[in-house]
Amino acid sequence: MIRESVKVHSSPMDADSPRQYVLTVSCPDGVGLVAAVSGLIASWGGWLTEVANHADRASNRFFMRNVIAADSLPFGIDEFRSGFLPLARRYQMDFAVRDSSVPKRVVILASRELHCLADLLHRWRTRELVFDLRGVVSNHTDAREDVERLGIAFHHVPVPAGDKEGAFAAIEGILDAEQAELVVLARYMQILPAGLCERYAGRLLNIHHGFLPSFAGGRPYEQAYERGVKLIGATSHFVTAELDHGPIIEQDVIRVDHSDTVEDMVRLGRDVEKTVLARALRYLLEDRVLVDGNKTVVFR
Amino acid sequence: MIRESVKVHSSPMDADSPRQYVLTVSCPDGVGLVAAVSGLIASWGGWLTEVANHADRASNRFFMRNVIAADSLPFGIDEFRSGFLPLARRYQMDFAVRDSSVPKRVVILASRELHCLADLLHRWRTRELVFDLRGVVSNHTDAREDVERLGIAFHHVPVPAGDKEGAFAAIEGILDAEQAELVVLARYMQILPAGLCERYAGRLLNIHHGFLPSFAGGRPYEQAYERGVKLIGATSHFVTAELDHGPIIEQDVIRVDHSDTVEDMVRLGRDVEKTVLARALRYLLEDRVLVDGNKTVVFR
Amino acid sequence: MIRESVKVHSSPMDADSPRQYVLTVSCPDGVGLVAAVSGLIASWGGWLTEVANHADRASNRFFMRNVIAADSLPFGIDEFRSGFLPLARRYQMDFAVRDSSVPKRVVILASRELHCLADLLHRWRTRELVFDLRGVVSNHTDAREDVERLGIAFHHVPVPAGDKEGAFAAIEGILDAEQAELVVLARYMQILPAGLCERYAGRLLNIHHGFLPSFAGGRPYEQAYERGVKLIGATSHFVTAELDHGPIIEQDVIRVDHSDTVEDMVRLGRDVEKTVLARALRYLLEDRVLVDGNKTVVFR
Amino acid sequence: MIRESVKVHSSPMDADSPRQYVLTVSCPDGVGLVAAVSGLIASWGGWLTEVANHADRASNRFFMRNVIAADSLPFGIDEFRSGFLPLARRYQMDFAVRDSSVPKRVVILASRELHCLADLLHRWRTRELVFDLRGVVSNHTDAREDVERLGIAFHHVPVPAGDKEGAFAAIEGILDAEQAELVVLARYMQILPAGLCERYAGRLLNIHHGFLPSFAGGRPYEQAYERGVKLIGATSHFVTAELDHGPIIEQDVIRVDHSDTVEDMVRLGRDVEKTVLARALRYLLEDRVLVDGNKTVVFR
Repeated sequence: MIRESVKVHSSPMDADSPRQYVLTVSCPDGVGLVAAVSGLIASWGGWLTEVANHADRASNRFFMRNVIAADSLPFGIDEFRSGFLPLARRYQMDFAVRDSSVPKRVVILASRELHCLADLLHRWRTRELVFDLRGVVSNHTDAREDVERLGIAFHHVPVPAGDKEGAFAAIEGILDAEQAELVVLARYMQILPAGLCERYAGRLLNIHHGFLPSFAGGRPYEQAYERGVKLIGATSHFVTAELDHGPIIEQDVIRVDHSDTVEDMVRLGRDVEKTVLARALRYLLEDRVLVDGNKTVVFR
Repeated sequence: MIRESVKVHSSPMDADSPRQYVLTVSCPDGVGLVAAVSGLIASWGGWLTEVANHADRASNRFFMRNVIAADSLPFGIDEFRSGFLPLARRYQMDFAVRDSSVPKRVVILASRELHCLADLLHRWRTRELVFDLRGVVSNHTDAREDVERLGIAFHHVPVPAGDKEGAFAAIEGILDAEQAELVVLARYMQILPAGLCERYAGRLLNIHHGFLPSFAGGRPYEQAYERGVKLIGATSHFVTAELDHGPIIEQDVIRVDHSDTVEDMVRLGRDVEKTVLARALRYLLEDRVLVDGNKTVVFR
Repeated sequence: MIRESVKVHSSPMDADSPRQYVLTVSCPDGVGLVAAVSGLIASWGGWLTEVANHADRASNRFFMRNVIAADSLPFGIDEFRSGFLPLARRYQMDFAVRDSSVPKRVVILASRELHCLADLLHRWRTRELVFDLRGVVSNHTDAREDVERLGIAFHHVPVPAGDKEGAFAAIEGILDAEQAELVVLARYMQILPAGLCERYAGRLLNIHHGFLPSFAGGRPYEQAYERGVKLIGATSHFVTAELDHGPIIEQDVIRVDHSDTVEDMVRLGRDVEKTVLARALRYLLEDRVLVDGNKTVVFR
Repeated sequence: MIRESVKVHSSPMDADSPRQYVLTVSCPDGVGLVAAVSGLIASWGGWLTEVANHADRASNRFFMRNVIAADSLPFGIDEFRSGFLPLARRYQMDFAVRDSSVPKRVVILASRELHCLADLLHRWRTRELVFDLRGVVSNHTDAREDVERLGIAFHHVPVPAGDKEGAFAAIEGILDAEQAELVVLARYMQILPAGLCERYAGRLLNIHHGFLPSFAGGRPYEQAYERGVKLIGATSHFVTAELDHGPIIEQDVIRVDHSDTVEDMVRLGRDVEKTVLARALRYLLEDRVLVDGNKTVVFR
């Protein structure tokens, strides 16, 4: 079965750097895969500027990321895709090809802890991270002013105990309407329904304020404080139906000691959360992350 | 109740640096504790060269570590101790005072993974860590030659499935005979019986090859690999009857990625284990660690 | 000579946590200093909740930081100060005592790289860092809108090649008018005149985008790239007349590799700059930093 | 000009893992390089298990590392090499191909600080690092016993002020006799003559006990202490005629504070030196390092 995991838009929106196509591939491991892919690209005159691969011995899967100078090719991305299909069929490849000049469509979900949202907005605004920010959804209104003054749509979707279903239907409607390629849960403090997790599998990025698998679930800093750990951390992962158990993309930690209260940990942890989420988002925006069962391959 | 948690030997064995007394105190929190302690020392003409304290809001306990230049006092450690007793009684203090020139009596337990043992032996031999190494106990003989050529007693105590009790009685006999002040489990792969853990509470230092509380129990690197974490770690902690749940003294981590196999993690983890264990041991040798319920106060 | 290095305002502005006095002391090293200070405080019934000290063997200076519960004292900060004077005179102490509930008066200087400013504004606004933000000065107008919408005064002071003197006189006028206790150079890309550095010694905090003493002066990321280092860093330090040579308060680094361009380093470095500057500022706001010649003592 | 930078031995000595050929290439950048190399290997039926590349925009050079399952090829390494030559000529490639089962011939130089030597000997002995240890050279005899008891040749070559030339001629004789592919300076405290540096360019690995380019030359920890830095580090680099200026392979740092003396820094730094040197050596043993002017490309 051939699956193109990420859709590509037709109209480029960005031209910061030389336009590139990023080709990601995963398939059963075997002989000649690198040569087959690079040979086909070379046969088109394509200039392969970056190549990275990984073979997982346990799953016997092969993963590859290739970057090709778009100008070196005699045709556009649609022809690239159709030209690649026969090879993909032969090797049972899941593949995706993206035009790096077309920013991904992103929706951010937030609640009341706004440091991650503020951080992402700053990186987006200064073009440190380049993406097409389609809107911000929140179950509170605290962020409205900061979002709207940047000209970004703000959707207030309360999640009442009595009608969570309606709330999540509304959110799903927004994501669908915006054709979101990535949904970033920037300390969004609601548990998404399993159906939404499945429909948007591989496109839901969460930041958990604990060093998973330690301290899953609620109040991770309190848990860390109780246990007396000497390092606290944050984890960015894909969201799946099982809470805090999705494939991990990025993690980091910071040192604490006996003099740090829970409040200190919350404060210190914020900086870790921000950088871990921003790094994971960058990897996704640059098509550096491939899913391998419940793990990730991250070509940094 | 007043408890002097660490016994002090009568004959100094080491004179690398100016002789100091290290006074550690823990007691219910209250007003005037710093002044009471430092005032008493000053009344003796004692020169307090280092002072550090911590008040735990949750347990409402107070912890203090004081270093006093031994030469500034008009008497020896026994007089210090008896002179301090009335104050300790008044404030319900647990306290200990040690002469820094008297190395602690240490026994190391090891099995077949010998990197931590080799690392400790090198630090001991070069006097980077100063302690009175009374012997090495192992359930295997792999380390015998390396230990004995340094003039250190090596005790081979097999732990057969059918007679664990006898084995641990033998080990306890060795620890008692050597009057071990610290017992270091340097990747010792046997679970100590509860009775031994209790008798030697606060004196049993373990290195766990996982970032606790994640990956407690056996095969932590395999667990980490399965979960796809991006950082692996090691944890040094006091041993209690509940496996891998004792108070944590020191932890550290190292970055891994998808290309690292379990074997790579084992290899990378070794360096973390060694440094984490050596740091924790140093803290203990310098009386920097106080136990606060299931947590530690580490005055670094 | 007795110097009170930091002035204290009369009207408290903040009441987040129990009010405390922070007493910092530096003086020639000697016997009985801890006891003298803590004894005096105890004689007033004062509750010393934190105490930390350091004796520098090279300079033979003693440094101390004490935190006292304000409510435990029978009088206010002026009486504290006058009550402490005789002791300070006897031991030739430089000392300062501050009421933790009175935020410090801070002015921020910025240019066109605004990530550090944006980061500080967010921390200030969310009260993660509590200070009295008196204004932002810049030689450009890029930051005006973001500053003014928070209700903060924005001063545009161009620094023309032909009249730097006039520009810095204007800035000094602003700092004096605001009675700035701290001046934060948040990637301010102008070199301050020696006279200003001297008048505001110990109150000028800079973030240098290189790991000092490597890569002092201009274009540190380019220098790092040329040299092929594997870690890049940032340094927060007091500003002195000699460029990038003042006492270092905080540093940190991040890993780079051969695939990182100068632009990547600039981007990665930003996150380090932000956290290093925010940490250093916190230490200063909490009176944790004492100057020891060209070095700092940081009681964390 | 085609240069095969590393010679390969005829007799395999090791069979821990599946035998692989590691092909490293550097050449002027251009179109089709990946395809040309991987296509040629595929045409032989070779299974490319790892591929990594880098194009340096500044030098306009291309670097590549390929790992091929040896058993997938119908011939041996000599045929591989001769089969690769025409392609190498066409693209002006410097290339090297190595059989991973043939450990590299290594000579270690040490002086009196023996922690790095002891660390390398332990890793060698436990086969954590696999290499053909041909001997240890020292200007002192402290290490003799530890080296010889492992069955390794120990060469005592004093370096008297009056006859350095003779000493280095003797050392060069040993390196030549052992056909050393790598020479590791494990805290060897003598400056090698320029001629030796040039003859063994790319094969001399040093560990400097400072974070280069800061603190080059002698007494780096003293320099770091004087400057009051908050992190100290170590640097592993190729040795060139200009002291401490060769291409950097690996670096790391550790946090220090005001309470750390020079002796503390020396002690803390040792752990950094050991791990940095061991990592750099691993990269070299696995042919992961390519030289790019005064920088390195490290395919980790």
